Amino acid sequence: MDEAPPVDGDGMALDGTRIDGTRIDAVLFDVFGTVVDWRGSVAREVEMWSQERGLGIDAADFADRWRERYQPSMEPIRHGEREFVPLDVLHRESLEALLAEEQITASADEIERLVLAWHRLDPWPDTIEGIARLKARHIVAPLSNGNIAMMLDVAKRAGIPWDAILGAEVVRAYKPAPEAYLRTAALLALPPERCMLVAAHNYDLEAASQCGFRTAFVVRPRQYGPDQRIDLAPEGDWDVVVDSFPAVAAALGA
Amino acid sequence: MDEAPPVDGDGMALDGTRIDGTRIDAVLFDVFGTVVDWRGSVAREVEMWSQERGLGIDAADFADRWRERYQPSMEPIRHGEREFVPLDVLHRESLEALLAEEQITASADEIERLVLAWHRLDPWPDTIEGIARLKARHIVAPLSNGNIAMMLDVAKRAGIPWDAILGAEVVRAYKPAPEAYLRTAALLALPPERCMLVAAHNYDLEAASQCGFRTAFVVRPRQYGPDQRIDLAPEGDWDVVVDSFPAVAAALGA
Repeated sequence: MDEAPPVDGDGMALDGTRIDGTRIDAVLFDVFGTVVDWRGSVAREVEMWSQERGLGIDAADFADRWRERYQPSMEPIRHGEREFVPLDVLHRESLEALLAEEQITASADEIERLVLAWHRLDPWPDTIEGIARLKARHIVAPLSNGNIAMMLDVAKRAGIPWDAILGAEVVRAYKPAPEAYLRTAALLALPPERCMLVAAHNYDLEAASQCGFRTAFVVRPRQYGPDQRIDLAPEGDWDVVVDSFPAVAAALGA
Repeated sequence: MDEAPPVDGDGMALDGTRIDGTRIDAVLFDVFGTVVDWRGSVAREVEMWSQERGLGIDAADFADRWRERYQPSMEPIRHGEREFVPLDVLHRESLEALLAEEQITASADEIERLVLAWHRLDPWPDTIEGIARLKARHIVAPLSNGNIAMMLDVAKRAGIPWDAILGAEVVRAYKPAPEAYLRTAALLALPPERCMLVAAHNYDLEAASQCGFRTAFVVRPRQYGPDQRIDLAPEGDWDVVVDSFPAVAAALGA
């Protein structure tokens, strides 16, 4: 990594090529799937609960079905049909609907504990090293749809050295609404082109790119489990395409 | 500090007595005067500019007079007579009014540089050690009237290890309005009594206390310069009364 190739002229880069890191002040991260393994972490907690109760739930499948309700749950807020509420609230509503569908009864304490499983997500093995390297010369912060308390709990537990907690709850807009990216850049007093979004999801990078952000695609081939079929390759002309956070740091010369 | 006296029953403490740190999840900090020496830092930058221009300004007096406009500048926003704008905007307006009063002309670049002096504030010598100790077991974040970009610039330059950047711009309310404290606790998903405000200003602690926050008064006897007459002693029944950030950490058993 110390012997990275020289910076090319226009700052565009493919896998392994560097871009000019001095042109970027803030490196902002999608979190679910990009920074942390939400599926494995939530499934672990569902499995513990299922065993305690003797429910015999397929925990990974349960996590997937809970997550299926994630995008639809934000739609009314994105379209102005509902006031902004934090993701913890949407997670709770989605869980209650899923439990009802499955005809599983759960106490208020059990529901609280499951909702808070999203506050105990494990980072991917390369997450901390990459963010720590980037932090030396860049602002590093989550730009997630997760709420502030969730992001703080995850970071404190995992030791993620964020400079700030940004994202949906701060700007009161859920990605991929343009306001989520543009208001974040405005809060940082930065033009969008001095912000980079790091994400393992093409749709998120597409929306950020439309707002003028620089983009880094990090492939996370197991974020949806062993049968992942999407987000295995870049689907846009992203500035950086890599397979780990240290490789993002290397691409920016950090 | 390792031999601090035992925790007393009701968690109340005077200088040197510990309170039960396990009852507090978030330690939130006033910044101007408490974490950083705003007066010395702004005066230093005014002095450099004055010398370059040969203006012969009394830099400390200029800093004081700029700061005199600080509280009045927030009043229309506190009273709902003006939309929230970040403190950088108010600092610029106050500076322009002061320059006009002094009949000093300044270019747009000079004004920008002076406004950004508030992004280059030096911490007090004990600041970093105390916050780093508290960070091990508590959420540590600014709860300042400063805006996010300002707080981030100060922290990155000085190496202040915040977990998050909270405060006026996040909750769109200026202290001592109750919303500034209550909305911050709500964002952290904490009841107010699990939040502590650390401040060198009695009025700030009074407002936080009214909202249910725990309080730590740190005397900063030179924050207003050599002739300081206010905030030299506690004027309320604060939970902790100390003279440094490491002493706040010790009082919480951190």
